Amino acid sequence: MNGEIISIGTELLLGDVLNSNSQYLSKELSILGINLFYHSVVGDNAYRLKQTLLTAFKRSDIIITTGGLGPTQDDLTKETISKILNLPLELHQPSLKHIENYFKNNFCKMTSNNIKQAYIPKGSIAIPNHNGTAPGIIIEKNNKIIILLPGPPKEMIPMFEKYIISYLSQKQNKNFYSKYYRVVGIGESALEDLLLDIIDKQENPTLATYAGDCEVLLRLTANAKNEQKANKILQPYENFIYNKIGQHIYGGKEDTLEKVTADLLLKHNITFSIAESCTGGLVASRLTSVPKISKVFHSGIVCYSNQAKKNIVGVSKQILEQKGAVSPEIAEELCKGLYNKTHTDIVMSITGIAGPEGGTIDKPIGLVYIGLLYNNQIEIYKFHLKGERKKIQKQASQLALNIIRKKVLSII
Amino acid sequence: MNGEIISIGTELLLGDVLNSNSQYLSKELSILGINLFYHSVVGDNAYRLKQTLLTAFKRSDIIITTGGLGPTQDDLTKETISKILNLPLELHQPSLKHIENYFKNNFCKMTSNNIKQAYIPKGSIAIPNHNGTAPGIIIEKNNKIIILLPGPPKEMIPMFEKYIISYLSQKQNKNFYSKYYRVVGIGESALEDLLLDIIDKQENPTLATYAGDCEVLLRLTANAKNEQKANKILQPYENFIYNKIGQHIYGGKEDTLEKVTADLLLKHNITFSIAESCTGGLVASRLTSVPKISKVFHSGIVCYSNQAKKNIVGVSKQILEQKGAVSPEIAEELCKGLYNKTHTDIVMSITGIAGPEGGTIDKPIGLVYIGLLYNNQIEIYKFHLKGERKKIQKQASQLALNIIRKKVLSII
Repeated sequence: MNGEIISIGTELLLGDVLNSNSQYLSKELSILGINLFYHSVVGDNAYRLKQTLLTAFKRSDIIITTGGLGPTQDDLTKETISKILNLPLELHQPSLKHIENYFKNNFCKMTSNNIKQAYIPKGSIAIPNHNGTAPGIIIEKNNKIIILLPGPPKEMIPMFEKYIISYLSQKQNKNFYSKYYRVVGIGESALEDLLLDIIDKQENPTLATYAGDCEVLLRLTANAKNEQKANKILQPYENFIYNKIGQHIYGGKEDTLEKVTADLLLKHNITFSIAESCTGGLVASRLTSVPKISKVFHSGIVCYSNQAKKNIVGVSKQILEQKGAVSPEIAEELCKGLYNKTHTDIVMSITGIAGPEGGTIDKPIGLVYIGLLYNNQIEIYKFHLKGERKKIQKQASQLALNIIRKKVLSII
Repeated sequence: MNGEIISIGTELLLGDVLNSNSQYLSKELSILGINLFYHSVVGDNAYRLKQTLLTAFKRSDIIITTGGLGPTQDDLTKETISKILNLPLELHQPSLKHIENYFKNNFCKMTSNNIKQAYIPKGSIAIPNHNGTAPGIIIEKNNKIIILLPGPPKEMIPMFEKYIISYLSQKQNKNFYSKYYRVVGIGESALEDLLLDIIDKQENPTLATYAGDCEVLLRLTANAKNEQKANKILQPYENFIYNKIGQHIYGGKEDTLEKVTADLLLKHNITFSIAESCTGGLVASRLTSVPKISKVFHSGIVCYSNQAKKNIVGVSKQILEQKGAVSPEIAEELCKGLYNKTHTDIVMSITGIAGPEGGTIDKPIGLVYIGLLYNNQIEIYKFHLKGERKKIQKQASQLALNIIRKKVLSII
């Protein structure tokens, strides 16, 4: 089957939004064995959208659109396709119910124009949107498949994964089974180098890497008749991956490093507190984004200033003056000072230079110490991180969470 | 003039490469006042490239291609356009010289197929490539302008900036000027309702809204000869927008709420500390992502547990037991307790129920109190937020930052 992607939205033509949807969909369609020949982008304009769709109908079996399903007047995708295919829009009650609930749950007032989102072309299939109001839509007509997806990636991607992949797999008469590995502490290029043997072959299974925010997502995909056969194909490759980079894998697709780490603390009832200087509360913020964490998370202190380090955490003034705030000694002092206040099982500290100012030859921007106190034993980790301030903070928080994760795994 | 962008390369259709060129060019063309109506992506396939180009010639005055200018056989852009326009390829000596020098300077061996890159269509203009071997090409024929640019952004962008912008500015007698407004504390639909008068007209200027993460970006764009005339067009609309929603506007396009807030604290040297319960350090983390904030940010305490509230911030045990952690009294206690430790100009506290557990009828999930202590005066704000845990935390942090921002503005 030949496919094409049409992205709809004037914001794309103005360059206000990067068309990341097309890349995501291209990767997915390639894995599904659909030959993608074109991407198009067109604005919120009925005439030009119609022309683009007519061209696509002529040359492609599968057309996937993203965008233009919103509640406002310039959202025209459904209306235009409905006219071209002569399929009148009809109110889809379950979608209306979903939209009403969505607004209720988000404490927003539903405006009358949101009702428009619950209309779908006659005879089409509505696809639930678990992260927004606009349902996706599948239309089958004249041996063509048209799939309408919402524009925001946080709505589009989960919808595609949950519903569209299985739908297209059936149409293709091929089944794809994927395993995902979330990898931290190693870059995408280094990862590809290590896994070159699999990447070079790329037949069955295929391996894809997706660069994330200071981590990488690996996807291993087999084409097989059923899950059992897929697992047989995948197993030796999974073993190979774990042999090469097992220590860097923290979880699967739906995991986040903060959730995996927080859940380990919760499961083993290990209490935790943290003193953060250069990460400014980022580790605390990430851990406390996980439900129920209040059971083990005692406290975090953002001891950004030296006064805070002394007066709130109780760091020795003398050591602070002698060694400076960014030093292994202060990392240790922070852990011990905080332990005296919290008596939690694990106490962590982070001190470093996030930049863009404050770096010296001895202590350059990106120098970060992470301290960990457990069972009267202190460990100090030293890192040299690269990048802008926010990147250094994010990387440091990744490293910190991974240190907690590994610590819990080592003591349970 | 109407324009379109054609990106050429099978790697784009496989999702191996993100099409960032289109976004860059869209932004630039928008600023130059060229109405961009389409992006297309097509692979390294002569037939489909020809079809795409023919469609573009019919509907656009300016066609900008990226990619397909490389030395290999699957680089077909120049060859295909040369055939369509009946302009034979001719060796361009200065380009050949440049390619030879490029290899010499980079200590690489020039292969014979690189000579192909020095051929350009008869009568066209070669554009120097300072970062690679393929020259750009400008063709003017039949009242159309075709601009061929190399695919790699590190070659394309400098070439566009150095040569193409001035070329296109001469051709255009129009310019677009935009103003951006970042809006917090009001949703996209509600915003559109308030600004319907402008949105409905949508001639000159036009108004667009872009939903962000717990905020909205507004763009007002005028089509005018120069900046002064654009400002004359935009001013009454800007006044209208400020009259309607001025209190919600916190900044312009490049601003973030944390940066605007942090910069206000820094500019007026107002010291700050915060005790966060339900937001778990998110406000501290956002503020400390801003460079130099260490000058005014004293400390943050993530007092997630009741022990932390008592032992670290110094909240009264009695009030905590009588009123509960999520109460205006505890919001006040947290501010006062933290003030005793930090003596900062502003002290803030946040306590609430982020869920998914812990809600009651009296104190439902989403109930959040924000306390602010300044100049011996305490203010307590009460909110009912909706959504998932992370959304409630993010919303609360937006509200908190906005409260700080408004406070600073009111006291300076």
